[in-house]
Amino acid sequence: MFWLDLVGTFVFALSGGLCGVQKRLDPFGVVVLAFAAAISGGLLRDVLIGAVPPAALATWYYLAVSAVAAGACYFAHGTIQRLATLIAVSDAIGLGLFAVVGARKALNAGLSPVMAAVLGMLTAIGGGIARDILINRTPMIFRGEIYALAALAGACIVTFGAAADIPDAITAPMGAFLAISLRLVAMRQGWSLPRARPR
Amino acid sequence: MFWLDLVGTFVFALSGGLCGVQKRLDPFGVVVLAFAAAISGGLLRDVLIGAVPPAALATWYYLAVSAVAAGACYFAHGTIQRLATLIAVSDAIGLGLFAVVGARKALNAGLSPVMAAVLGMLTAIGGGIARDILINRTPMIFRGEIYALAALAGACIVTFGAAADIPDAITAPMGAFLAISLRLVAMRQGWSLPRARPR
Amino acid sequence: MFWLDLVGTFVFALSGGLCGVQKRLDPFGVVVLAFAAAISGGLLRDVLIGAVPPAALATWYYLAVSAVAAGACYFAHGTIQRLATLIAVSDAIGLGLFAVVGARKALNAGLSPVMAAVLGMLTAIGGGIARDILINRTPMIFRGEIYALAALAGACIVTFGAAADIPDAITAPMGAFLAISLRLVAMRQGWSLPRARPR
Repeated sequence: MFWLDLVGTFVFALSGGLCGVQKRLDPFGVVVLAFAAAISGGLLRDVLIGAVPPAALATWYYLAVSAVAAGACYFAHGTIQRLATLIAVSDAIGLGLFAVVGARKALNAGLSPVMAAVLGMLTAIGGGIARDILINRTPMIFRGEIYALAALAGACIVTFGAAADIPDAITAPMGAFLAISLRLVAMRQGWSLPRARPR
Repeated sequence: MFWLDLVGTFVFALSGGLCGVQKRLDPFGVVVLAFAAAISGGLLRDVLIGAVPPAALATWYYLAVSAVAAGACYFAHGTIQRLATLIAVSDAIGLGLFAVVGARKALNAGLSPVMAAVLGMLTAIGGGIARDILINRTPMIFRGEIYALAALAGACIVTFGAAADIPDAITAPMGAFLAISLRLVAMRQGWSLPRARPR
Repeated sequence: MFWLDLVGTFVFALSGGLCGVQKRLDPFGVVVLAFAAAISGGLLRDVLIGAVPPAALATWYYLAVSAVAAGACYFAHGTIQRLATLIAVSDAIGLGLFAVVGARKALNAGLSPVMAAVLGMLTAIGGGIARDILINRTPMIFRGEIYALAALAGACIVTFGAAADIPDAITAPMGAFLAISLRLVAMRQGWSLPRARPR
C-alpha cells in the first residue's frame, strides 16, 4: 500500500506539474501545484479520519517525490508535445491508485464498506479538484466524462472485497486496474453518461 | 436536531443537484455536487471541532438522502421551469437549518456563544460555498444580498438562548425560522446592505 | 508568538477587507472575506496538526481583530487611492508573520524542520489562497512573482534555527523580516523566476 501511495503521489504530481507548465508558472509555482495535486486528496482523507499529522506532512517522502516530478515537468516540457494527453493519463493512473489506497485507509479507520469506498473516491478526486480550483479551471469531475465513477468502482472492489475476506493483495491491484482502465477507455472512446438537459 | 440535520441535508442536496442540472452535468456529477453541497458545511464544522470521522461519513444516511435528492433533480428537471428560484429557496431553508444544528454542535464542543454562532454560520454557508466554487461561480455570500448574516442571526438565537438556559426545543425552531424568513424576505424584497464604492 | 499571530491576523484581514472593498461587497461580505483571509491559513495548520478547535475559533480575539480591520477598510476606502498596492503590502507582512508563527507551531507539534517549514509556508499562503478563491481570482502564488518562496525562506530560518538551538527570540524576527523584505523587494523590482514556456 505504501508503494502504491508513493507511485500515486508521483503521477498526480506529474499531472499537477504539467498543468503548471501549461499555465506557464515559474518553477516554484510548478512545485507547489504538483505538491497540491499530489497530497490534497490524502490530506483530506487523513483529516476526515483523524489521522493527523497526515502522512504527507509527517514524512518528507511525499514532498521529495512531488519535487522530482515537478522538476521533470519543468525541464522536460520542451520535449513533450502533447501536454494535455499526458496530464490526463497521469491523472487517470493517480486516480486508480489513490482510490484503492484511500479505501483501505478508510476501512482501517473503521468506516463501513460503502462509506469507505466514498472516502476512497474523495481521496482519488481530491487532488485533481484542488489542482483545478487553484488554477481557476472547472474540475475534471464536472466535465461530463466518467471520472469519479471510475474511482468509486475501484474503491468498491477493495472495500467489498475486504467485507468478503478477500485479501488486499488481490483486490488492490484489481481495483486500481479497474479504475484506471475504466477511466482511460472512457476518455479514449468518449464514453459519458447522458447529461441533464434543462429547458 | 438529528432530523433538522437530515432535512437540511436534503434541501442543500436539492440546491446542489439543481445547480448540477443547470450546468448540464451527467447523473454522477449531479450526485457528487448534491453530496458536496449537502455535507461540506458539516464536514468543515466536524473537522474544526475534532469530531472525526464526521457524521456525514460515519453513517450512510447523508449519502442516501443526497442521492435521493440528486435523483429527483435529475429526473424531475423537465417539469421544473424555474431552476434558479428553486435553488435559491432550497438553499435558504438549508441555510437556516444548518445554522441552528451547527451552532448546537459547536456549543456541545465547548465553544463560547459568540464563536459557536460563528461556527454555526460557517456550517450553514460552507455547503453553498463548496457548491459554487466547484462549478466555478462566485459564492452566493458575496453577491451582495443578505445571506451569511441571516445564518448568523439564526445561530445567535440558539447560542445566546442556551447561555440564558432557554431549551433548544424553543430556540432551534425560532432560530431556523428567523434565518430562513430573513433570507427569503431579503431575496424577495431585494434587501441588501450598502456596498462599498471605492473610487 | 501570540502577538506576531495577532498582528499577522490584522494585516491579512486588511488585505481581505480591501479586496472586498475592491469587489464592492457589502459590509458583512467585507467582514467575512477579511476573516477568511485572516484565519484560513491558521485553520488549515491547526487542523493538520490536530490542534482543534483551532485558536481562531477557541477565542474571540481573531474575530474581533478581523472585524476591526474590515471596518477600517469599509469606512476608510474613500481616502485610500491605491487599493491594489495596499492589499499587496499588507499581504506581504501577513505572509512573513504567519510563516514564522506557523513554522513554530508545526515544530511544537513534532514535525521535522523541513516539513515544519513547509507547513509554515502553507499557513502563510493559505489565507491569501482562500481569499482569492472566494472572489474567483487566480491565487497570487500562481501569478509568477516570488511569493510562497519568500514564506518558505522565512519559515526555514525558524525551523533550522531551532534545530541549531538558536532561540526563537532571534530567529522569529529574522525569519519574518527576511520573508517580508524578500516579497516586497521582489514585488518592487519585478523579480521573478523564469517561467515555463511550453511549445
